[in-house]
Amino acid sequence: MSDAAPFVFERPVRFDEVDAAGILFFARFFNYAHDAMEAFFGQLPGGYVQLINERKIGLPAVHVDADFLSPLRFGDVTRIEVSTVHIGRSSCAFRHSMSRAADGKKVAVVKHVCAATDLASMKSLPIPDDMRALMSRYLVA
Amino acid sequence: MSDAAPFVFERPVRFDEVDAAGILFFARFFNYAHDAMEAFFGQLPGGYVQLINERKIGLPAVHVDADFLSPLRFGDVTRIEVSTVHIGRSSCAFRHSMSRAADGKKVAVVKHVCAATDLASMKSLPIPDDMRALMSRYLVA
Amino acid sequence: MSDAAPFVFERPVRFDEVDAAGILFFARFFNYAHDAMEAFFGQLPGGYVQLINERKIGLPAVHVDADFLSPLRFGDVTRIEVSTVHIGRSSCAFRHSMSRAADGKKVAVVKHVCAATDLASMKSLPIPDDMRALMSRYLVA
Amino acid sequence: MSDAAPFVFERPVRFDEVDAAGILFFARFFNYAHDAMEAFFGQLPGGYVQLINERKIGLPAVHVDADFLSPLRFGDVTRIEVSTVHIGRSSCAFRHSMSRAADGKKVAVVKHVCAATDLASMKSLPIPDDMRALMSRYLVA
Repeated sequence: MSDAAPFVFERPVRFDEVDAAGILFFARFFNYAHDAMEAFFGQLPGGYVQLINERKIGLPAVHVDADFLSPLRFGDVTRIEVSTVHIGRSSCAFRHSMSRAADGKKVAVVKHVCAATDLASMKSLPIPDDMRALMSRYLVA
Repeated sequence: MSDAAPFVFERPVRFDEVDAAGILFFARFFNYAHDAMEAFFGQLPGGYVQLINERKIGLPAVHVDADFLSPLRFGDVTRIEVSTVHIGRSSCAFRHSMSRAADGKKVAVVKHVCAATDLASMKSLPIPDDMRALMSRYLVA
Repeated sequence: MSDAAPFVFERPVRFDEVDAAGILFFARFFNYAHDAMEAFFGQLPGGYVQLINERKIGLPAVHVDADFLSPLRFGDVTRIEVSTVHIGRSSCAFRHSMSRAADGKKVAVVKHVCAATDLASMKSLPIPDDMRALMSRYLVA
Repeated sequence: MSDAAPFVFERPVRFDEVDAAGILFFARFFNYAHDAMEAFFGQLPGGYVQLINERKIGLPAVHVDADFLSPLRFGDVTRIEVSTVHIGRSSCAFRHSMSRAADGKKVAVVKHVCAATDLASMKSLPIPDDMRALMSRYLVA
């Protein structure tokens, strides 16, 4: 199980995403993590949009942690490798291993723990089977 | 009427609001315009929040135009002078005259035309009397 | 010349780009316009990144105006048709005609006037020939 | 030392900071953490702006972790209590305890580890004495 290949998503650093120090603002790594997760669920029919808009299932973050290893700048493309590191009843955790696409330099590792949530009641719900099956394909030990 | 004093709102340029050229990203002038409008309606009891959350009255932009005269950088404080330049049945227009607080240098002029809108139906509605009265106090020819 | 086909760029509305009224926040249309312009210059070798990072040529906005015709929501994909409407010595103007990709409904028209600028001195400079040639291909009357 | 009072900073949730689920987008808690840190260093003469713009000292994040306990919505004001939990040679750590100002409900706890950095060389440097002295006043066990 430890050798499941990750889901790969690439995301360029945009012109307006750097800060006054000229580097990608640290909070934006979490925007990227979310973009990667949206792309990940894009593998399901209807994608993340259908989860939110039609099935009313959200995945709000309940915990995140991140190590920032090297800065990114405008012009860099971020390569994000998404693995699943936990699949519980309603909670799940992704690991986003981020590198600079041009040279493979590691830039950040983000752990992103979510809770499947009924957006109408904002209460947790069991992870639906199709989401669980997808996440299982990317599960690492 | 042409000498109504403007409503004044100050807003520092934040660390993460500049772009890769090191200046305030141009789209953010409209975030500032909206912040100024929120502060403007903060003069009503309950403020802009109550308009949106309780009265379900929004002011989506239907037209904007802007001249950008000089860049702003991190560390600058933007001084925004808000005047009303039109009050119709359901539409209204603000002019945001923006300068750098430290030296008064003009940085942008933004015209911001909104339509009072029922957020439930997303249809226009007449501007309520309290909003109209407030805007009238800042009306310039 | 009036029938030059536009440059087309598609951009989904992201999860975090809506406002408390549930629609794409109006300032973000200008982020989209900039994204479209970046993609437009992506047709040059090295793209917009090389303009900024290596040639130190920026295109700060000097004027914008926009009509907002219909709201966009999360799940919508914005189709942006980019035309050039003016090419001067150092200034140029784009028109971004934005529609909802799913049904073609017009959502916004943005005029975006830029000044070619030396990012070191922040002074205007003549539009370089390669940029001018590219823009000319999309010029409409 | 464990009873040092925190530095308190309040920050309203802005109209454009929610996501398509109607709650403050999780990445923005880190924008708030940074805003709180800027305000914290605003206690020094010249504030965070002078650190960045004149002294060229940055505090890029090297690690963050956060627990998200309850959602925030437009109209809420976030109360952020900032404490220092570590002061090393060049690294330091803040804890931002965030609650909803209206009722005190805990919404998030963010740990924010930074490295004092020379922005010219992007190399770490010892925390200057004035910053160290300020942080020491808010140190908790």
